[in-house]
Amino acid sequence: MSKVVKFGGSSLADAKQFKKVYQIIKEDKERKFVVPSAPGKRFKEDTKVTDLLYKAYRAQNKSEFNATFEEIKERYQDIIDGLKLNISLDEDFEIMKKAFEDQIGEDYAASRGEYLNGKVLAHYLEFQFIDPKDVIFIDEHGNYDIEKTDPILSAALANVENAVIPGFYGSLNDGSGIIKAFSRGGSDVTGSIVAKNGKVDLYENWTDVSGFLIADPRIVKEPDVIETITYKELRELSYMGASVLHENSVFPVRSEGIPINIKNTNHPEDPGTLIVESTCHKPAHVITGIAGTKGFATVMIEKDMMNSEIGFGRKVLEVFEAHDLSFEHMPSGIDTMTIIVNTDEFIDKEQDVLAGLHRAVQPDSIELESDLALIAVVGRGMKASRGTAARVFNALAKENINIKMIDQGSSELNIIIGVRNCYFEPAIKAIYNEFID
Amino acid sequence: MSKVVKFGGSSLADAKQFKKVYQIIKEDKERKFVVPSAPGKRFKEDTKVTDLLYKAYRAQNKSEFNATFEEIKERYQDIIDGLKLNISLDEDFEIMKKAFEDQIGEDYAASRGEYLNGKVLAHYLEFQFIDPKDVIFIDEHGNYDIEKTDPILSAALANVENAVIPGFYGSLNDGSGIIKAFSRGGSDVTGSIVAKNGKVDLYENWTDVSGFLIADPRIVKEPDVIETITYKELRELSYMGASVLHENSVFPVRSEGIPINIKNTNHPEDPGTLIVESTCHKPAHVITGIAGTKGFATVMIEKDMMNSEIGFGRKVLEVFEAHDLSFEHMPSGIDTMTIIVNTDEFIDKEQDVLAGLHRAVQPDSIELESDLALIAVVGRGMKASRGTAARVFNALAKENINIKMIDQGSSELNIIIGVRNCYFEPAIKAIYNEFID
Repeated sequence: MSKVVKFGGSSLADAKQFKKVYQIIKEDKERKFVVPSAPGKRFKEDTKVTDLLYKAYRAQNKSEFNATFEEIKERYQDIIDGLKLNISLDEDFEIMKKAFEDQIGEDYAASRGEYLNGKVLAHYLEFQFIDPKDVIFIDEHGNYDIEKTDPILSAALANVENAVIPGFYGSLNDGSGIIKAFSRGGSDVTGSIVAKNGKVDLYENWTDVSGFLIADPRIVKEPDVIETITYKELRELSYMGASVLHENSVFPVRSEGIPINIKNTNHPEDPGTLIVESTCHKPAHVITGIAGTKGFATVMIEKDMMNSEIGFGRKVLEVFEAHDLSFEHMPSGIDTMTIIVNTDEFIDKEQDVLAGLHRAVQPDSIELESDLALIAVVGRGMKASRGTAARVFNALAKENINIKMIDQGSSELNIIIGVRNCYFEPAIKAIYNEFID
Repeated sequence: MSKVVKFGGSSLADAKQFKKVYQIIKEDKERKFVVPSAPGKRFKEDTKVTDLLYKAYRAQNKSEFNATFEEIKERYQDIIDGLKLNISLDEDFEIMKKAFEDQIGEDYAASRGEYLNGKVLAHYLEFQFIDPKDVIFIDEHGNYDIEKTDPILSAALANVENAVIPGFYGSLNDGSGIIKAFSRGGSDVTGSIVAKNGKVDLYENWTDVSGFLIADPRIVKEPDVIETITYKELRELSYMGASVLHENSVFPVRSEGIPINIKNTNHPEDPGTLIVESTCHKPAHVITGIAGTKGFATVMIEKDMMNSEIGFGRKVLEVFEAHDLSFEHMPSGIDTMTIIVNTDEFIDKEQDVLAGLHRAVQPDSIELESDLALIAVVGRGMKASRGTAARVFNALAKENINIKMIDQGSSELNIIIGVRNCYFEPAIKAIYNEFID
């Protein structure tokens, strides 16, 4: 067994956090490859090192630059001193200063937070340091170049017992050696790519939470943690607004069948959330998670005998497509068809779409409503458990919440419910309380 | 106030029934225009006169023809004798015999049932007889020619105090005078056209049932009668298999805002079902009716990130359209889209559609299931009453019925539920018992 351990910014914000990370890595020999983020916030009003780096890079004058640059140096020196390490970053800072003055690129500037943190951590752990600029290659759009990266990174990792590989960046895949950051997902993507190419058995993603929560803690007070979740469930929850790992950071490990374990650096004893391709483990609850978002609009099209018009649905969707609008759902009655779209995307094109629909399908009427919230109740356990829909709708009925839309396809992995924006939070609370106690 | 009264075949099957019809018409001066069907069955094993007419017309030899023709003559003679009427149909039968021998057309043959019944009823009521061949014009596809019919029929009806206008037929709109029947809806359509052009206030449709039932009596034992139903609700129920008035018979009166009252000739005291454009009357129950049909198939398409592909839904529907398939519903999850189609229409094209889908959208997987039944729970009362969905799904959960699909658009006039075929009857029973007691 071997593992990749990725630590988020709050897990490496200062010397105290570094000590926890050391403890975690050293107590388990399987934790071979370490992917650090840049130092995050130490307290609520603190600034992340990455943000200081951007600030320094964009500084309008010398004094602002110098003050910010000093602040960055102090952050690292505090860590080095706190850990009583025998390492100096002076040379690195000299090179950085020069590069910043030459304005060699924002990605370069931002990436130095991870780079320096990786150097310090590698020294502290006595692990080898691997600079991702030599082993991870990123295209101009910020996506990982699989063909160029995989052979080089695999070879590099095969040659070492242990290593620290900073997250968030690599170099452009054009051979120029220019530092390039990932567009989305940051250090999580690096962890995932390292896990894939290090051929490990588990990707531990260490954060400041003990896993994913069943519902948004701003809505439900102290929600339970999800023990095990499949990639599919995760995708459904994240799509509906739950803040979880970015897609890009999931694909490399998913394709290799490597599970991800979300862990809490401050509570390493907590089991966290395990993300898997599929599992025979009976889920702890019938539902795995609840997520949702406000801000959808409904376009309800009525036309007598629409069902007997072959091509009706296609023509309707063509109008939305012509205006570059994607639709979320399309529930249909007998003579009605409702298209659900994102209000922000729709609002400016509203009248054009209406005119287009009138031309395309000559409806009897079109009604618009714009305060719809969508809630997804997700769970692989729903398939085996009859009466889930009843429990969901009971819970909402008890709270007097009117349901504007219901959509359950035959995957039986989720039920999607539309309610007015004002019922969004009460609906999530009601569903949570029905299933989790 | 004035009314059109249309009587179905069982209401005019014999002299006893004719007496009831006479009573009904004579007790209300507003019942000005009468539209009769041909004599129907007098008892379960009896043959309708229309079927005897077809049999005579298609007779293979003289003796079969003569026997059948005599049977028809007897049916009418029994009515005339039973009512002690001073009328002879001999001349009509002579003309008919000649026309049958000349094979002048099946529509002509079939229409004689209504024609003769209309003559007898007009004589009995002492109402004027209007032959629809002179006032109702039908195109070659069997649809009512509005432009040609309306001015002529309106004028004819404006000139009479009372009249009997046989149902089911008219003449071809090409000026040839050839007898032509309606393709669908028969005498109900005639009643509706007469109601429209007679500018009446109510269209009474007299049958052998006291109105529409909330659910299929073969599934639910002695279901309640629907008191008031809107055209929209009616359309939703009929679409889902409830046997009610044909669309064609509803449009002429619907466009004029004339309500239809379904009444029972054998229990004229029963209020029956009133069909209206819209109503402020609070419905008797939250749900107006339940209907459904078996025999649907689901095509579940899975593809990661399908939601971010603009045009995905349109491309999927294009494949179905290219194979001349209409879809019933299209519930969608996050990475799944399910297309529900009629199994009989789909089955021969199945593999072509699958190949087409693979080419069009490169799905990760496609799953087919073919034993889906759809149930529509319809009711204008659902909009005002929260918790309807909960009650529906509770009722199903109590019976351990697994729900394969749910679709509720924002019209809030119906909830459509998909269950396996084997749960079709239990599901309808459970929903009925939940809402109607």
